[in-house]
Amino acid sequence: MNIPLTPVRFLRYALQQYPGKTAVVCGPERFSYSQFAERAARLAGGLRQIGVKPGDRVAFLSLNCHRLLEAYFGVLEAGAVLLPLNIRLAPDELAFILNHAEASVLFLQNELCGLVDSFHQRLSAVHWFCMLDHHNQAPWLLPQTYDELLSSATPYRRDIAEFDEDSVAELFYTSGTSANPKGVMLTHRNIYLHALHAALSRETSHDSAHLHTIPLFHANGWGAAHTPTLRGFKHVMTSRFDPLEILRLIQDERIESLGLVPAMAIALVNCPEFHKYDLRSLRWVGLGGAASSPSLVREVEEKLGCQCYSGYGLTETAPVLTTSSMKPGLRWEGEQRFTGQASTGYAIPGVELRVVDANDQDVARDGEAVGEILARSDGVMKGYWKQPEETAEALRGGWLHTGDLATWNQDGYILIVDRKKDIIVSGGENISSLEVEKTLLAHPAVLEAAVIAVPDQKWGEVPKALVVVKPGGRVNDSELIEFCRSRLTHYKCPRSVEFLESLPKTGTGKVLKRDLRKKYWQGQNTIGVASPVHQESSM
Amino acid sequence: MNIPLTPVRFLRYALQQYPGKTAVVCGPERFSYSQFAERAARLAGGLRQIGVKPGDRVAFLSLNCHRLLEAYFGVLEAGAVLLPLNIRLAPDELAFILNHAEASVLFLQNELCGLVDSFHQRLSAVHWFCMLDHHNQAPWLLPQTYDELLSSATPYRRDIAEFDEDSVAELFYTSGTSANPKGVMLTHRNIYLHALHAALSRETSHDSAHLHTIPLFHANGWGAAHTPTLRGFKHVMTSRFDPLEILRLIQDERIESLGLVPAMAIALVNCPEFHKYDLRSLRWVGLGGAASSPSLVREVEEKLGCQCYSGYGLTETAPVLTTSSMKPGLRWEGEQRFTGQASTGYAIPGVELRVVDANDQDVARDGEAVGEILARSDGVMKGYWKQPEETAEALRGGWLHTGDLATWNQDGYILIVDRKKDIIVSGGENISSLEVEKTLLAHPAVLEAAVIAVPDQKWGEVPKALVVVKPGGRVNDSELIEFCRSRLTHYKCPRSVEFLESLPKTGTGKVLKRDLRKKYWQGQNTIGVASPVHQESSM
Repeated sequence: MNIPLTPVRFLRYALQQYPGKTAVVCGPERFSYSQFAERAARLAGGLRQIGVKPGDRVAFLSLNCHRLLEAYFGVLEAGAVLLPLNIRLAPDELAFILNHAEASVLFLQNELCGLVDSFHQRLSAVHWFCMLDHHNQAPWLLPQTYDELLSSATPYRRDIAEFDEDSVAELFYTSGTSANPKGVMLTHRNIYLHALHAALSRETSHDSAHLHTIPLFHANGWGAAHTPTLRGFKHVMTSRFDPLEILRLIQDERIESLGLVPAMAIALVNCPEFHKYDLRSLRWVGLGGAASSPSLVREVEEKLGCQCYSGYGLTETAPVLTTSSMKPGLRWEGEQRFTGQASTGYAIPGVELRVVDANDQDVARDGEAVGEILARSDGVMKGYWKQPEETAEALRGGWLHTGDLATWNQDGYILIVDRKKDIIVSGGENISSLEVEKTLLAHPAVLEAAVIAVPDQKWGEVPKALVVVKPGGRVNDSELIEFCRSRLTHYKCPRSVEFLESLPKTGTGKVLKRDLRKKYWQGQNTIGVASPVHQESSM
Repeated sequence: MNIPLTPVRFLRYALQQYPGKTAVVCGPERFSYSQFAERAARLAGGLRQIGVKPGDRVAFLSLNCHRLLEAYFGVLEAGAVLLPLNIRLAPDELAFILNHAEASVLFLQNELCGLVDSFHQRLSAVHWFCMLDHHNQAPWLLPQTYDELLSSATPYRRDIAEFDEDSVAELFYTSGTSANPKGVMLTHRNIYLHALHAALSRETSHDSAHLHTIPLFHANGWGAAHTPTLRGFKHVMTSRFDPLEILRLIQDERIESLGLVPAMAIALVNCPEFHKYDLRSLRWVGLGGAASSPSLVREVEEKLGCQCYSGYGLTETAPVLTTSSMKPGLRWEGEQRFTGQASTGYAIPGVELRVVDANDQDVARDGEAVGEILARSDGVMKGYWKQPEETAEALRGGWLHTGDLATWNQDGYILIVDRKKDIIVSGGENISSLEVEKTLLAHPAVLEAAVIAVPDQKWGEVPKALVVVKPGGRVNDSELIEFCRSRLTHYKCPRSVEFLESLPKTGTGKVLKRDLRKKYWQGQNTIGVASPVHQESSM
């Protein structure tokens, strides 16, 4: 008997087994699993009522709130495709995505109404704009709010046997550091199996509460819609990161787990009010979104009294690929454990990883040899929306090519050292832009630095540094180059330095090297400008 | 990206992630995951070498040992179908199964050689008989033993992409209390998803050891081949149940989990040497195979210092459907908890259960109304081997009809009260044979009792008791009927009693009511004799 795999089953199961249990806490509102499931079914009914057809894309522009969480189930129940949008994207990017995906509905929060007002006339496919939280008089909006839509709708639930597990359930656009955003298609099966494997990758109690510190619209956060539902956990929503509010919620809602990017973790452990809160319920903190450090892992563990480890994943992998927790059979002690837990980690169940050289041969598992990470897992996307060539390129040979460069060691732990397209090839030598950037950041006057490849007659390409100086800081180009030479092999050092007011960034805060490179490569061939594969390393 | 779901992935993953970790302990032998995986790959190579083709059935007649565990992966790696045989079956039953399944190979342990010798000439399809443990001079055996086959073989591993997740991986014959054994076909997908859901149904640590107290060839035991492998646990094999040996293994191998049938649990907690062992590693005991009692659950928990709960499943469901542990959101205290944990339990993740009346309508969830349990899950079999009509009947309407009768309560916990075909319908009243048997067993002189329906001119059918008296016990038929009348409603009491030396039983110890009924129903229509659906309630 084959039952279609779909995350909708998670909420159905929770409704059957835990109807009265608290499912969602969002500000002053609390919903049981019975209410959560009812609202998701009403959203499905409401979408059908306004005319949404199976396969239609339904976009959400929202901070974390219970309504966005409901969409992860209700939109799929209606047979439609959920398209969560990153609220930090620029208007042009949002308009590009909504038009490329041909979304027919856009749900938005009141505070984002002005943003959408600036580009809604450019949206060719959106038939309905619906307010999530408040009434608003803008003429292009539906008169009903989301809650009114739910109130007037008949709950709708499809027979599970009618779902097609290989159909697209969610569409996420990658943030596009190297090209236009691409739409990553995740199927019902991708999401179902990802959630099961992710749940198996760590020990949790059966009566747990998870705090949604990371936006659900972000790779790092969306997986969190499913696993806690499958397990009957309490979802606790936070719309913005405020250390005091996080500490209060951990205490009041007895939070067991949460995810943080390193900057959030630093803010939390350095919060002066810290000791006033009872954090004993906290069992683990997952660090993602950027490289971590052993000292941060140690500080989080010691101050928050929990386990702290990293994870790695991509938009294309639904997202989790690794955990850096200590695997069965290892006996890490002291610093070794913090170093291990700050690494990129090892493949969670269901995931296979390889680290390969340019000829697709595995590099030595010696913690030194660098290669590209390839992944094969049930969570790997069906492909890019309307981009069959990019899909074939990314999935060539049956493995997702991540574009991330890493070492791996004998225990199977990988450590990301750079993005493939951020490697500068100068005179046949590979230069990690990350390594040079780290060196520049060690200079007391440097606030931000990006190192890119620029064309060179003799070496093909050479590294160039783009630097933002700290307020009051003073340094010139030759001093910075000299500073690098005292710390790095000569060929790795920038040949030139340019000082900027700020670095261009994506909505998720990543430096847009694509934009930085453009001016130096105009009229050249495309080397160094764009790579056909783009993923967001996000966990 | 769809990666075929197959349990072979569990061992591949363990090989990648825990190569040096202890995988299997079997008597004095210990194997790492690297060695376990190597042996499974060599078994696959050896099978191909002797001529086994993809899809062939490969039978094993063996007590629990590392070789039988290897077969759960190696046979599938070769593309063949594993057919584990219950060593307690009669020669006729074994011959029936091997011929019906057309097994081409039979692996057997030395101590079972005499048994096979008695029927091997009746086996039409078996080309190769191979000794698992010792050399034996029987002329019908391959000269090579299993270990010699492995030594001379080239390890063989298929590309995972070549597996067909919907093909049959394992074939298990149900024990046949009501008809000839039926071959239950479990696909690679059935087994993979069952293992993931079963793993999610309980909290375990990541560095655990599981003791295989239940034979792997039994429904109650085979699921245990997969989940511990997926999680990188240590498998500890025991071939026969000996309380002292069990206690020693729990202590020496730091066992965290094990399964017991109630009779084993009683023997264990009453073992006089009990207090001499350090059992602190033990975290949970799963009770299955027969109904449990609150007092036994309490005794196991208090004496073994662990959690103890029941489970329920069928050969047809791969097997686990329920756990009786306390679900998230409940707050059982004291006796309420023991009663709950002794019940049949609630559906584990991935499983949907219903309890329905004769019109397939859900009965009230009041803990009183009785109906048949229907199940829908990823573990439900593909069907019965070469029995399409029985398959269609069992899976009608997209739900497996278990034939087990139960109540369910508001919290979603079910409690099995009887087998459907063991219900006696007398004058329009339903009589649970189980209830009458329990009453008879309460008489101090009764050792065993079976209650069956016999034909009656006036009432259609009436209950008859077949009783085995304890050594030295004295009781006659009218005394027993009077004993029942003092405890049960009149119509439920046996109209006649027959005293037997013993009751006919299956290889798994279930009373063969089919055989008992035969003599009373000859020449009648088939009511009460056979039901087209047969499952073994086994966890």
